[in-house]
Amino acid sequence: MNQDHLSAVPHLTTALSGPLLQLESHFLEHQPHIEAWFRAQWQLSAAPVYASVDLRNAGFKLAPVDTNLFPAGFNNLNPAFTPLCIQALQSAIEHDCPTAMRVLIIAESHTRNKFYLESVATLRDLVAKAGFEVRTGTLMETGEALPVVLPSGRQLLLEPLNRFGNKVGVAGFTPCLILLNNDLSSGRPAILENIEQCIAPPLISGWSSRLKSEHFKHYRQVAKEFSEVVEIDPWLIDPLFRNCGEINFMKREGEECLARNTDILLRAIRQKYEQYGIDKKPFVVVKADAGTYGMAVMTAHDADEVRELNRKQRTRMSAAKGGQGVSKVIIQEGVYTFETWGDEEAVAEPVVYMIDHFVVGGFYRVHTGRGSNENLNAPGMHFEPLAFAEPLNNPDTTQDPDANPNRFYAYGVVARLALLAAARETATS
Amino acid sequence: MNQDHLSAVPHLTTALSGPLLQLESHFLEHQPHIEAWFRAQWQLSAAPVYASVDLRNAGFKLAPVDTNLFPAGFNNLNPAFTPLCIQALQSAIEHDCPTAMRVLIIAESHTRNKFYLESVATLRDLVAKAGFEVRTGTLMETGEALPVVLPSGRQLLLEPLNRFGNKVGVAGFTPCLILLNNDLSSGRPAILENIEQCIAPPLISGWSSRLKSEHFKHYRQVAKEFSEVVEIDPWLIDPLFRNCGEINFMKREGEECLARNTDILLRAIRQKYEQYGIDKKPFVVVKADAGTYGMAVMTAHDADEVRELNRKQRTRMSAAKGGQGVSKVIIQEGVYTFETWGDEEAVAEPVVYMIDHFVVGGFYRVHTGRGSNENLNAPGMHFEPLAFAEPLNNPDTTQDPDANPNRFYAYGVVARLALLAAARETATS
Repeated sequence: MNQDHLSAVPHLTTALSGPLLQLESHFLEHQPHIEAWFRAQWQLSAAPVYASVDLRNAGFKLAPVDTNLFPAGFNNLNPAFTPLCIQALQSAIEHDCPTAMRVLIIAESHTRNKFYLESVATLRDLVAKAGFEVRTGTLMETGEALPVVLPSGRQLLLEPLNRFGNKVGVAGFTPCLILLNNDLSSGRPAILENIEQCIAPPLISGWSSRLKSEHFKHYRQVAKEFSEVVEIDPWLIDPLFRNCGEINFMKREGEECLARNTDILLRAIRQKYEQYGIDKKPFVVVKADAGTYGMAVMTAHDADEVRELNRKQRTRMSAAKGGQGVSKVIIQEGVYTFETWGDEEAVAEPVVYMIDHFVVGGFYRVHTGRGSNENLNAPGMHFEPLAFAEPLNNPDTTQDPDANPNRFYAYGVVARLALLAAARETATS
Repeated sequence: MNQDHLSAVPHLTTALSGPLLQLESHFLEHQPHIEAWFRAQWQLSAAPVYASVDLRNAGFKLAPVDTNLFPAGFNNLNPAFTPLCIQALQSAIEHDCPTAMRVLIIAESHTRNKFYLESVATLRDLVAKAGFEVRTGTLMETGEALPVVLPSGRQLLLEPLNRFGNKVGVAGFTPCLILLNNDLSSGRPAILENIEQCIAPPLISGWSSRLKSEHFKHYRQVAKEFSEVVEIDPWLIDPLFRNCGEINFMKREGEECLARNTDILLRAIRQKYEQYGIDKKPFVVVKADAGTYGMAVMTAHDADEVRELNRKQRTRMSAAKGGQGVSKVIIQEGVYTFETWGDEEAVAEPVVYMIDHFVVGGFYRVHTGRGSNENLNAPGMHFEPLAFAEPLNNPDTTQDPDANPNRFYAYGVVARLALLAAARETATS
């Protein structure tokens, strides 16, 4: 990785970029219609306060594979776009809680994950720069505030929550707005139930309530409506998926259903590949339906692969974040990532950040040790964050459809479609 | 000017910076209160769609001297902040006209001023990037569309307006929103009266309706309220002013009133200078009350200077933009500008740009041939625009109060106070 991080972007190393070029052209041509459509959509379903969306860019297809409503990684964004984040936060908070002056961020309890805590510190600094008093709370029952010194040299104080009547706060600080950055994988905490303060995102957005399959059901509908606006085949932006009922990997219950659905899905993907002349092997990704954090994820190119899991694989598929068991899975079309970075041709996967309905930046997860058909967000995996060099809201019709500003614009469009799916999901849950 | 335009900012060349340092410290310390106060204010009086504010930085005082509700100079902003402008425009238009898809910019009729037309082209491009169909109209009765090729290589088509019933448009294009960039110095055009489309800013914001003295009366009140929030003497941010009744420079009517008020104002300034130990000669600036464009402006250090105008000076003071006569003037406290740029120590005056209530950038007017007590915005005067190198919404409490991010934050605060005065002025007019 000897290239200049501030000016370069990954290469799209595939000859299969015809449909994507077509996608980018369509997006550029329809830009006013796309934006008008989004504006109308946000009036119907308010955007979440923030989100990050993992995209996969196969050249022939550009699709979201995961939507995180409690984004970490703010520290990986390009500092050049800090003003954009600040302005978007001002919009978001004005919108959610017009009279707010004090904001309490509630962080995840991974206190040993310095990468995560750097993100919390960045988020805290952004909220402060946006003009709010800000403190950071934790759901851990520590009893005492925990000061942390971060690798960046910044300090972070994780403070235990107090509750007085219908209000929650930390020592000497009663916030107007709770900014939740804890995905509630371990369930909805009693201390946050029925509080009178604004809380964003709402508790129902936590992983204790969400299902990926529900999200992608909304996404499928969003992609369908959007595809009519820009006149494309929705498959170009929508990963196919199926889901099963109850599954118990350890007891090998539900295995047949999983295998059957994997087979159906692989055939559906093969058909689309044939339609577009794509000479690649279809694959699926099996993930915990309520999971996050890259745990309980596996790739399969054949139904037999999910039928013949060994004990170790079954154990790995059974445990999601926070020690929660996996009883439901989503089987999602695998989308190749054909963006590579540097001389070593490391695989790069874009992650797009949004605050309110504004796209404020993003970065690539760059992995040297992974293949183009593998999940790049897994626990313990080291990835190199490569901040997006350009903004995502600055398309340039004077350049080619696949020029950098236009590729980034396309990322922002597809990521916002996932954001809209999340908005509808929250409104209906 | 051999310095790097992208990283350097003008020097503050004065030993009198004590009170300003204090101002910047107060702003930093009170940042959450300032922002909460602004948020509450924008709920009471919506911000204009856009504005630019000329500031003067005397080291001991930082004050607005002019507020333009039809800003030109968008082409002078730092391209690095284009994403910020796009995002703010999206907010502004969503707010003013949620269903808008087509925007018509109505430009000034200075078709030979390529600098101005570059600004219009930049504004047009920003609106397009924000996701709207955009065309550019003119109030000139040309009958035909006028294509212009700009020094930047961009093209601009100035199209004559049509009116059908209660709607106005250009050939084959009926906009949802009219974005007025013509300050209506020549009066409110009949073609824009009683149209059913959104028009921003409203016609009453034009110079045919506005008076500078009215604006600064609102500003005085805003500065007073704000100064209580941050605990400062309002004079540190507020230029004193007085105004007269009818004046006719050619007939020498109203001269005595002008001289008397000049004298009273100079004494009031001298008193403040003494209070703060400022060893400078007070001066006033006399300007057309309904004027703009830097016309009909003069500086005086003594009441006799306004009494003994020669014929040429009187002629100059009589004619405002668009051939309008001057019958009212405002006498404003002159604020020294002690920012200088480059080896030649050229005088620099900051101009701050806002879209909706967001500060999106700005530039310095840099003049080599002018003194620190002279007006830097005058017709035919050449200034060198120096784009602000840093954003204005990114204060940094880890740095000194007068570090660049904090100085820019202070500019943004004072400029927004002028914006708020304009918002109140529009609401009450």
